[in-house]
Amino acid sequence: MTNFADKLLKKIEVCNNPTVMGLDPKLDYLPSEMLNAWLDGAKNKKGARSVNMQEATGEAIFAYNRLLIDTVYDIIPAIKPQFAYYEMYGLEGIKALKKTIQYAHEKDMLVIGDAKRNDIGTTATAYANAIIGETKVLDDSIEAMFECDCVTVNGYLGIDGIKPFMDVAKKKGKGLFVLVRTSNPSAGDLQDLKLEDGRQVFEAMAENVEKWGQELIGESGFSSVGAVVGATWPEQAVKARQIMPHALILVPGYGAQGGSGKDAVASFVNGKGGIVNASRSLMCAWKKREDIVPMAMTDIEGPSGKTLLGFQKATRDEAIRMRDDLNAALKG
Amino acid sequence: MTNFADKLLKKIEVCNNPTVMGLDPKLDYLPSEMLNAWLDGAKNKKGARSVNMQEATGEAIFAYNRLLIDTVYDIIPAIKPQFAYYEMYGLEGIKALKKTIQYAHEKDMLVIGDAKRNDIGTTATAYANAIIGETKVLDDSIEAMFECDCVTVNGYLGIDGIKPFMDVAKKKGKGLFVLVRTSNPSAGDLQDLKLEDGRQVFEAMAENVEKWGQELIGESGFSSVGAVVGATWPEQAVKARQIMPHALILVPGYGAQGGSGKDAVASFVNGKGGIVNASRSLMCAWKKREDIVPMAMTDIEGPSGKTLLGFQKATRDEAIRMRDDLNAALKG
Repeated sequence: MTNFADKLLKKIEVCNNPTVMGLDPKLDYLPSEMLNAWLDGAKNKKGARSVNMQEATGEAIFAYNRLLIDTVYDIIPAIKPQFAYYEMYGLEGIKALKKTIQYAHEKDMLVIGDAKRNDIGTTATAYANAIIGETKVLDDSIEAMFECDCVTVNGYLGIDGIKPFMDVAKKKGKGLFVLVRTSNPSAGDLQDLKLEDGRQVFEAMAENVEKWGQELIGESGFSSVGAVVGATWPEQAVKARQIMPHALILVPGYGAQGGSGKDAVASFVNGKGGIVNASRSLMCAWKKREDIVPMAMTDIEGPSGKTLLGFQKATRDEAIRMRDDLNAALKG
Repeated sequence: MTNFADKLLKKIEVCNNPTVMGLDPKLDYLPSEMLNAWLDGAKNKKGARSVNMQEATGEAIFAYNRLLIDTVYDIIPAIKPQFAYYEMYGLEGIKALKKTIQYAHEKDMLVIGDAKRNDIGTTATAYANAIIGETKVLDDSIEAMFECDCVTVNGYLGIDGIKPFMDVAKKKGKGLFVLVRTSNPSAGDLQDLKLEDGRQVFEAMAENVEKWGQELIGESGFSSVGAVVGATWPEQAVKARQIMPHALILVPGYGAQGGSGKDAVASFVNGKGGIVNASRSLMCAWKKREDIVPMAMTDIEGPSGKTLLGFQKATRDEAIRMRDDLNAALKG
């Protein structure tokens, strides 16, 4: 069984890019011509009265995700779908999530399921089985449900809530990222509280992650029990890395949330050990490009040989800019 | 807009029962005759080769939930579906979740969505919209997705992760329960760490909950921003209540996990202010009854006038025993 940390680091090396593309779809991220085309299509297909708009919404979201994956699968090693945005669109949104995961795998990208799940014992096992494992169904056959390569988890409940994810990860060559220091402004409300022994709460969580991760360390020296540490807190990132020398670190907060390339790689060791997320800046790159017509053909070929549309070119340009920014920060 | 806390407390009063039935379906909770009937039905319906076993699994789970709701809707005020167990069965499981929520509402039960969601700002909004709010879809119409009356959330990310749930709750007359002291054995790993000012982490979280909840206090004197405090930790429950005089408290851990009736109501004030969950002890009551044939007709009528099956009678008997146990503890 390949170790997840090894697999992800290898893929980052091949792409020479420690970026993960966050796929957090909102309808207003899509170019309006594309939205209108889906809306017209849905109405024509079924007659305006019986249109299932939730279904059409899910289809539009998946179509956009697929085009984004088609745009960058040769230069970005992984996607990170944020489950909230799919659940927000109900069952049809969750169907789009499942199809997005499968499509990313077809294109040989890894999938970080950003679900921030947490619960106790057997319930945590149920979540782990849903997202990175498999389940026994009615005829006793075993089926995989969401098929992510790893999942984000919240460790507030202690080891009972983490061990089940680790057990599934170990069995299936998968991974998990435990929230240590999140990227939001109020992350410190609880995470920075000072303990009587001088540590802060996030440091205590980091110590747990390092300890929990010992049995899943791969050949790379990094563990498949990783941590989430936001790019918006470079000082805490350095501290967190000192406490967790073996943790793979998932770094949110680059770009739209304000973290710079240098901030984002603050926890990297010898140029590796982390992966930096960008969502809006990649998904909506076209919104910042007045020189681009989102749905018009460009003269650029995508990785599969198909001509890119305007919004795809904007995303690919931004992916290359981000890759070069991170690599420059790692060298500088 | 009715306040959620008021609505739940009213319903508890009408039923004279502070119990919520946890619906955490696993196939092995279902009587084997029922499983076999579903398996045969699925095979006959579509021919063995094309059977969609995930679909049949979701249907079996919903059918069981529906029969449980039919059994107790007159004496139990609410259900608490645990999202993990539905996600474990994939899309078809989630479809069963949605149908379960709708069916409980048809029977005038309230629904506590046990999802333990957590994320930052806009993403937390997406989760809130998914579970207790509504979403704009492709044709700009607004649709509700999972339609719960309230949702459990994890506050590790601070107020950024809670405020969006509060905003949706306020707008829609819904509620949330923030994890304060969970019922699992390792709850203390993080939650009991001592801060330099002498408080423990769960006490700091409880203070946040009390503060956050101020603007959602109803006529009952309780807030729609509630807290989860496990029945397995009665001492902490008393402390938590002192810190949060206005929080509605959701109490897991009664029964199968070891909490007694007295432990479960440790945080109640003047006989109210909380609701106690039981999942396995209600869903699988039939497994402890040698005198009952799970799928045989009994001579007992259910609340809708239909004759109860054996497993239903076991659940109803246990629901009444639990109600009386909790009420005795509240009086004693």
